[in-house]
Amino acid sequence: MRIVIIGGGAGGLSTASNIRKYDEKSEITVITRDKYIAYSPCAIPYVLCGEVDSFKEIIMHQPEDYLERKISVITQAEVYEVSSENNTVEYRFLNQNSKNSEGYGETLSYDYLVLATGGSPFIPPVEGSDLDGVFKIRTIKDGFKIKEWAEKSQKAIVVGAGLIGLEIAYGLKNMGLEVTVTEMLPQIVPRNLDPAMASIVQEYIENKGINVILGHPVEKITGDKKVTGAIFGEEELKADMVILATGIRPEIKLAQIPGIEIGRWAILVNEKMQTSIPNIYAVGDCVEVIDAITGHNTLSPLGSTAVRQGKIAAKNIAGVEAKFNPVINSMVSKIGDLEFGSVGLTKTGALQNGIKAISGKSRALTKARYYPGAKRIDVKMIINLKGRIIGCQIIAEERVAERVDTMSLAIAKGISCSELANMEFSYAPPVSMVIDPIILAAEDACIKLKRFNKSK
Amino acid sequence: MRIVIIGGGAGGLSTASNIRKYDEKSEITVITRDKYIAYSPCAIPYVLCGEVDSFKEIIMHQPEDYLERKISVITQAEVYEVSSENNTVEYRFLNQNSKNSEGYGETLSYDYLVLATGGSPFIPPVEGSDLDGVFKIRTIKDGFKIKEWAEKSQKAIVVGAGLIGLEIAYGLKNMGLEVTVTEMLPQIVPRNLDPAMASIVQEYIENKGINVILGHPVEKITGDKKVTGAIFGEEELKADMVILATGIRPEIKLAQIPGIEIGRWAILVNEKMQTSIPNIYAVGDCVEVIDAITGHNTLSPLGSTAVRQGKIAAKNIAGVEAKFNPVINSMVSKIGDLEFGSVGLTKTGALQNGIKAISGKSRALTKARYYPGAKRIDVKMIINLKGRIIGCQIIAEERVAERVDTMSLAIAKGISCSELANMEFSYAPPVSMVIDPIILAAEDACIKLKRFNKSK
Repeated sequence: MRIVIIGGGAGGLSTASNIRKYDEKSEITVITRDKYIAYSPCAIPYVLCGEVDSFKEIIMHQPEDYLERKISVITQAEVYEVSSENNTVEYRFLNQNSKNSEGYGETLSYDYLVLATGGSPFIPPVEGSDLDGVFKIRTIKDGFKIKEWAEKSQKAIVVGAGLIGLEIAYGLKNMGLEVTVTEMLPQIVPRNLDPAMASIVQEYIENKGINVILGHPVEKITGDKKVTGAIFGEEELKADMVILATGIRPEIKLAQIPGIEIGRWAILVNEKMQTSIPNIYAVGDCVEVIDAITGHNTLSPLGSTAVRQGKIAAKNIAGVEAKFNPVINSMVSKIGDLEFGSVGLTKTGALQNGIKAISGKSRALTKARYYPGAKRIDVKMIINLKGRIIGCQIIAEERVAERVDTMSLAIAKGISCSELANMEFSYAPPVSMVIDPIILAAEDACIKLKRFNKSK
Repeated sequence: MRIVIIGGGAGGLSTASNIRKYDEKSEITVITRDKYIAYSPCAIPYVLCGEVDSFKEIIMHQPEDYLERKISVITQAEVYEVSSENNTVEYRFLNQNSKNSEGYGETLSYDYLVLATGGSPFIPPVEGSDLDGVFKIRTIKDGFKIKEWAEKSQKAIVVGAGLIGLEIAYGLKNMGLEVTVTEMLPQIVPRNLDPAMASIVQEYIENKGINVILGHPVEKITGDKKVTGAIFGEEELKADMVILATGIRPEIKLAQIPGIEIGRWAILVNEKMQTSIPNIYAVGDCVEVIDAITGHNTLSPLGSTAVRQGKIAAKNIAGVEAKFNPVINSMVSKIGDLEFGSVGLTKTGALQNGIKAISGKSRALTKARYYPGAKRIDVKMIINLKGRIIGCQIIAEERVAERVDTMSLAIAKGISCSELANMEFSYAPPVSMVIDPIILAAEDACIKLKRFNKSK
């Protein structure tokens, strides 16, 4: 069996490695535009901020490592045509110096094709976005360029205050630059945090010396050949560099062939990760997924999603039944010492989806009160009017990620706030409070629900 | 309504405070033998090891703080008789200097009585257990005495390698003593960890310079008036002090009145925490609970259990319906930098209960591989032959407690290894791996189960 995988990111390589687990014989070929593979794009900000030593560290494998498992990886090559009739793909090398480069046209036949083409950075349609010193952020190459430019810069503007924007801003700040993050919505991290929770993170990054401008989209990037600043509302901010962290759009050019259904944003797949052409699968940022809570299609452009999807696609290709579940949007980020995470819907997100929601909150500590080094922890829990937990946001300087995972399990299993309030959790003074902050938030949600029901 | 609570530990005070939340008017009286209330006995070892500055720190409230909430706390007093016919208790002050002390006999009437009498340390029936320098460990007073004696000692033996034994051993080691922990079973932490997992903890404490002797009960404590050592098997170990960390037995003397049913070890209660006399409740170490997995009665002598039981008893007394769920034995401990935790049954425990079990394991990292400071993490997951998760043990130098809580939820909700293997968890390089170690252990358990089913 010949399997061709287009894309060498988390989704593509996870598919390749997992097929090999179940199937020792098939020919597996991965084709990627990138020179570097098997690196963690999520780690780029941590290289900038100095927490990880160098970009080299975050590259976990070389193409040769895959060859050992009989997975051939063709780098710096671009698939320019897929024929689902002939079951072939055609590709060419991007780089003239590349060893096999003979201009156009190599052809590969496949029994199964996997589209793992990822996403491309969305570039806001404003004047000046092509100036020198304006960067997008997606690949490790983008990381190299940003670092190099930042080393000779004083002031940076990061457009977009989502996770990546904030992480990059903190990275640049730690490199010694004066940094402003801007966001067109009236709060930071709008996708994952409700306003009051977002302002805790905002306060933290402002205390780290990062400026935050909310409620203004970038209107123009100024400069002649090289960027000199950007305009937000009435104001022009001066800068030597501008990073556009304005989101990722699914890369679906290659999927636009007869027979493959495209949804609102991306490729449509069934729970096996199969497109509407049975021997073509798709995984990662280029597919739509189902939101477990709303039931609607959505995007989940996360490395962890891509890895799980790759596993599911691989199993099905290898003949082992497996299903990809609807997503619950479990995420976490760390900026400096502050961890913040979220799963399910925010309250804003619930309302936008027409779901009536109530929230419970707690502000507590990560250890027993008397234990040195206990950190403040904030929890916001969202429930629907039946008491079922549909979202949770957690912020603290330690021990957030695993609590998000506990809540992920709670939300995935449809647990109610009263069930959670009665849960038995572990306790020891150096690592927890006798009643966990998420239990306290669940109790608060139960009280609010009772009050709501009484007031009806 | 008059409510009398016997016992000022976690169970008694949690009951008192929670009744007040739902009921502003009732008279609430707590009677305790202790001089100090509202302290965390779990924290005593952390004072010894110097992580918490002083015993004063771990006392969270004074009787006056309770008076503000109209809860009267009578300290250093002992209830010596309960009359369930007259609905009265009789108590006397233990300390002649105590202000109300007029010898015998104060009487209190109650509408509801709560027995929160806790447990007493089990003293092994060996010669020498009453020598000077031999200590039990239960109350803060025991902590004072141990600390004082340790300050003038060189060598200590801790009998019993359960949680408290190990924590105390580490505390004494940090005070500068030469410390040996002994255990009659062939492994440390036998209640909560399987042998291979226990040996990870053992290696850690041995590296910290603590000696461990396994497979020998204490046979005799030697010395004339003052302890000089103890005998284990053939060997006599010299020591200036011996700590008996040999477990807690439920304190049920007061419950031995007509009409109150006692189980194998402790007071029997229903899911409301009500004894067989309807207006007498019982909470904490003096009651039996149901094990969620085996369905059998068991003991759960944990502060966190007592607190949750107090809440349930309080609600029911105040007329708010609430049920105490069967326990899953969720626990965590921290010794030095090592956290270890467990929930559900160990594999040994499963076999002892006649449950056929299979286990999955993972050894992974707490952060992305390239992220500085990533720690090794070991996970062992126990499943029954239907694939349902019935236990989990986790050890690492960070981020264990919350993972135990995730597993607590998984076990309480009856989740299978394959459901867990497909779970969506959060991911960011500084705080997690893209596939969480507990997912890896669940995957391994699924593989082992498949293999087992094939081999049948």
